[in-house]
Amino acid sequence: MTGEKDAEKYTVGVDFGTLSGRAVVVRVSDGHELAQAEHVYPHGVVSETLPGDDRRLPHQWALQVPADYVEVLRTAVPAAVEKAGVDPRDVIGIGTDFTACTMVPVLADGTPLCELPEYADRPHAYGKLWRHHSPQPQADRINALAAQRGESWLPRYGGLISSEWEFAKALEILEDDPQIYATMDRFVEAADWIVWQLCGSYVRNACTAGYKGIRQDGRYPSAEFLAELNPDFAGFVTDKLDQPIGQLGEAAGTLTAEAAGWTGLPEGIPVAVGNVDAHVTVAAADALDNGQMVAIIGTSTCHVMNSDVLRDVPGMCGAVDGGILEGSWGYEAGQSGVGDIFAWFIKNCVPERYEVEARNRGQSLHEHLTELASSQRIGEHGLVALDWHSGNRSVLVDHELSGVIVGQTLETTAVDTYRALLEATAFGTRMIVETFVDCGVPVTELVVAGGLLKNQLMMQIYADVVGLPLSTVPSTQAPALGSAIHAATAAGAFTDVRAAAKQMGKRVRNAYTPIPENVELYDQLYREYVTLYDWFGRGNDMMRRLRRIGSLDAVGAAR
Amino acid sequence: MTGEKDAEKYTVGVDFGTLSGRAVVVRVSDGHELAQAEHVYPHGVVSETLPGDDRRLPHQWALQVPADYVEVLRTAVPAAVEKAGVDPRDVIGIGTDFTACTMVPVLADGTPLCELPEYADRPHAYGKLWRHHSPQPQADRINALAAQRGESWLPRYGGLISSEWEFAKALEILEDDPQIYATMDRFVEAADWIVWQLCGSYVRNACTAGYKGIRQDGRYPSAEFLAELNPDFAGFVTDKLDQPIGQLGEAAGTLTAEAAGWTGLPEGIPVAVGNVDAHVTVAAADALDNGQMVAIIGTSTCHVMNSDVLRDVPGMCGAVDGGILEGSWGYEAGQSGVGDIFAWFIKNCVPERYEVEARNRGQSLHEHLTELASSQRIGEHGLVALDWHSGNRSVLVDHELSGVIVGQTLETTAVDTYRALLEATAFGTRMIVETFVDCGVPVTELVVAGGLLKNQLMMQIYADVVGLPLSTVPSTQAPALGSAIHAATAAGAFTDVRAAAKQMGKRVRNAYTPIPENVELYDQLYREYVTLYDWFGRGNDMMRRLRRIGSLDAVGAAR
Repeated sequence: MTGEKDAEKYTVGVDFGTLSGRAVVVRVSDGHELAQAEHVYPHGVVSETLPGDDRRLPHQWALQVPADYVEVLRTAVPAAVEKAGVDPRDVIGIGTDFTACTMVPVLADGTPLCELPEYADRPHAYGKLWRHHSPQPQADRINALAAQRGESWLPRYGGLISSEWEFAKALEILEDDPQIYATMDRFVEAADWIVWQLCGSYVRNACTAGYKGIRQDGRYPSAEFLAELNPDFAGFVTDKLDQPIGQLGEAAGTLTAEAAGWTGLPEGIPVAVGNVDAHVTVAAADALDNGQMVAIIGTSTCHVMNSDVLRDVPGMCGAVDGGILEGSWGYEAGQSGVGDIFAWFIKNCVPERYEVEARNRGQSLHEHLTELASSQRIGEHGLVALDWHSGNRSVLVDHELSGVIVGQTLETTAVDTYRALLEATAFGTRMIVETFVDCGVPVTELVVAGGLLKNQLMMQIYADVVGLPLSTVPSTQAPALGSAIHAATAAGAFTDVRAAAKQMGKRVRNAYTPIPENVELYDQLYREYVTLYDWFGRGNDMMRRLRRIGSLDAVGAAR
Repeated sequence: MTGEKDAEKYTVGVDFGTLSGRAVVVRVSDGHELAQAEHVYPHGVVSETLPGDDRRLPHQWALQVPADYVEVLRTAVPAAVEKAGVDPRDVIGIGTDFTACTMVPVLADGTPLCELPEYADRPHAYGKLWRHHSPQPQADRINALAAQRGESWLPRYGGLISSEWEFAKALEILEDDPQIYATMDRFVEAADWIVWQLCGSYVRNACTAGYKGIRQDGRYPSAEFLAELNPDFAGFVTDKLDQPIGQLGEAAGTLTAEAAGWTGLPEGIPVAVGNVDAHVTVAAADALDNGQMVAIIGTSTCHVMNSDVLRDVPGMCGAVDGGILEGSWGYEAGQSGVGDIFAWFIKNCVPERYEVEARNRGQSLHEHLTELASSQRIGEHGLVALDWHSGNRSVLVDHELSGVIVGQTLETTAVDTYRALLEATAFGTRMIVETFVDCGVPVTELVVAGGLLKNQLMMQIYADVVGLPLSTVPSTQAPALGSAIHAATAAGAFTDVRAAAKQMGKRVRNAYTPIPENVELYDQLYREYVTLYDWFGRGNDMMRRLRRIGSLDAVGAAR
């Protein structure tokens, strides 16, 4: 038996999130997660002032300090290995996943510009977090021009390129700080930059290249297109972006001596190609088959799914060849507000008596309201809501939309509205599922990962509303597990990611199944949601006008 | 000077509300209110069980015990006179106003059937409060038949007769308890019943006869019409309803010895014809001119106004010749939810930190939220709401409508929503004003009475939204003051109510005036309100469907 134990091999998966990185140590033979450790980024999200500087950054800026990511390798990885109690020599590979699109401007050797003393006070020299939204004007121009020119790649992104993505971020640097633009040799996804730090070579992963870098059919937007945006932007792809592509699950290289020193792992073990937190979760869920839609539900929700068909699906974030699994079309969609809507409600809309009662029962307010909402009949509250408090990512792709609640009476309670908001997010997921299906991309199973899994009422509502069997991913660090699975594949322990996921991934099948009478009642409520959705989202511009009326500009204009 | 003081004369006005009666003593020379006293009805609103009975009353029932009204005469009137410190012999008249339509089934001598021991356990023998809503099926039949027959009186009521009114209430008795129907000699407005108790004779006031009794052009609905509703109902008008009409401000009779004993007032002083709380307030406001719209804003809002033109105004409660002032067309409209929406919000939608801060500042939560909302720019909250939490009385006349809020984001606070609800009720008033104007009934001034006058932010919003100069009625007991004015007229101190109101009524003219830049911004928000109003109120049936989906019937049908 000791011999068998000695024979066990492990991989490390590291999930780089918005505020921290989490490392897990996973057993290759069965995917068991032995231990995890977290390191919070010392600089967090830089949105007010640069480190050591007191000038205010503009509105909507969100920067990061890349050295913080290296700290995760130096602290969380060895801590997880130590907690796991395994011999580091039994770790056969390391894999990572990242938020995206998060970009780092670097020199040819990978040094972030912000680490050069002469650029430490230049905001554009820093990493740009996914939620750095200031390049919206650039994104608008990209979209307008692409539509005008009929660029073939535009429909692959549901017709809209986001301000979060690579081209909008790069164009903003060019136009706001041309010197930084000229100085940066490469503009690198953080997902690839961290792999570069681990293995010493820059391999561009197929996932972000496709979803965030507009790489379709092996090509990027043309120099002609870029020149029409800005003549100085014409060479962006060739000069600063293009790079050999690595498929997900391949090795980008092997661990350098320096990175071995940081992590305590053996020099020379394979380092997997970079990946994205949502997309890597599909492997953790062993849900790589066509039609298995994985919804990672947290503050927001990301939906990722493989398919063997390529279709134009309106309002999706993207369809990318090999974007989740080599050889499949990977689709991505999203809901921009989910958990953050519930958090907003808890903070702003719940009276004292519920807070007192929750404290008395030792429950969180979420738990207390959920328990009370559980006893309601479907539709009893008489409400229907639109879950657009943070805008709508799919299928409308409009961040100026806002929340709606219809049906309040003098008897409406906070419990009623809380439940209506849970339901609204389920309706939002159903709308995305139906849009896929209507476009000829089948969806057969809903697989849920993320922090809100623990809300059983919400999960049953999702099953009843979507009308599909709902599986759950019983891992608290599903993305890191997915990265460990990719690491095991890169290390050659499996022939491919699919085989690795089958062995190491985990998913509770049919954890929730639709209850027919609930489905029927929710069908009725969903029809009301769709009516609201079409009217506010497509039928009129009220929400946009409401934002304008109270703006300072409007007040100025009226005077 | 003593001689002058001795020469002062007084009248007593008594306002019979839903839960209590309030008496005020008013100086005839200038309308000064010397003192007031209140008596809470011992039985309040009887909606659960009859006195001394433990059988549950059906849903939507609301009864009263007429003896409670007499108690007000016995306690509040002498208490007010004593507090005022006047010699009762200087009181020259008494006037009353009542909730309406509140009905009492009586014997020929005025004895309420519920006071007969053999009927004390019969719910239909009791007084029926205005908000006794169970005769909705009867009201529906009245409306359908009237529309089918093209009854000429129907447009005078905006096309709809309410379940609250005399004919629906009477038909319910006939069909639910024919013996009580057969036994009742008269079916009397409480407004007239209390006058009957005071002066010993039954005079039917022109106001309730018109607004609640469908008396138009001197006639009631025909026996033919009534027979078609129910053959046994054919004789209702002649047998139980018709009675000589008294105009408002006339004397119905003089105080009987018995009533003088109850009240401590001199036997033989004139007793004014009965009146309704909202309508009598117009005199208290000295706002009897055409186009002066008096809005009594409380839990709900009642709008009353005189005009020299008769027009069909859709969705109004009624247009009645002499309904407010003899010789004018009196119009009535209403908003079914105003103060009760704010109260609902305070109870159900405001988080603990505001409650704590309000307590620390010694403010009510209303005051605290209002103070915080006062510092906002118009439209800053980005919200627009529909004020239909309690349905819509005018102009849609639909109690199945419900509340809506549009524009919530993750930054929306309770203060934002509170302000949006204040504004929504102002938009509701503007909609009523514009409906009058569009139909050719001019509105030139908005006169506000009632408890919400104290909210200065709300009053300025009303002036800005409606775009009319806003006057206020500086009396906490405006209806009772109005009754005292009618009493002074009945006593012959003035030639008519208009002259009495000019001398005794009070109104702060232009207490709030529209601020042009606010008017312009609110015009924009109001257009959004109108868009919502039309879509939810006229464009679809969503709110009605939402009530159905969750009903037990719907659940049963789905199973």
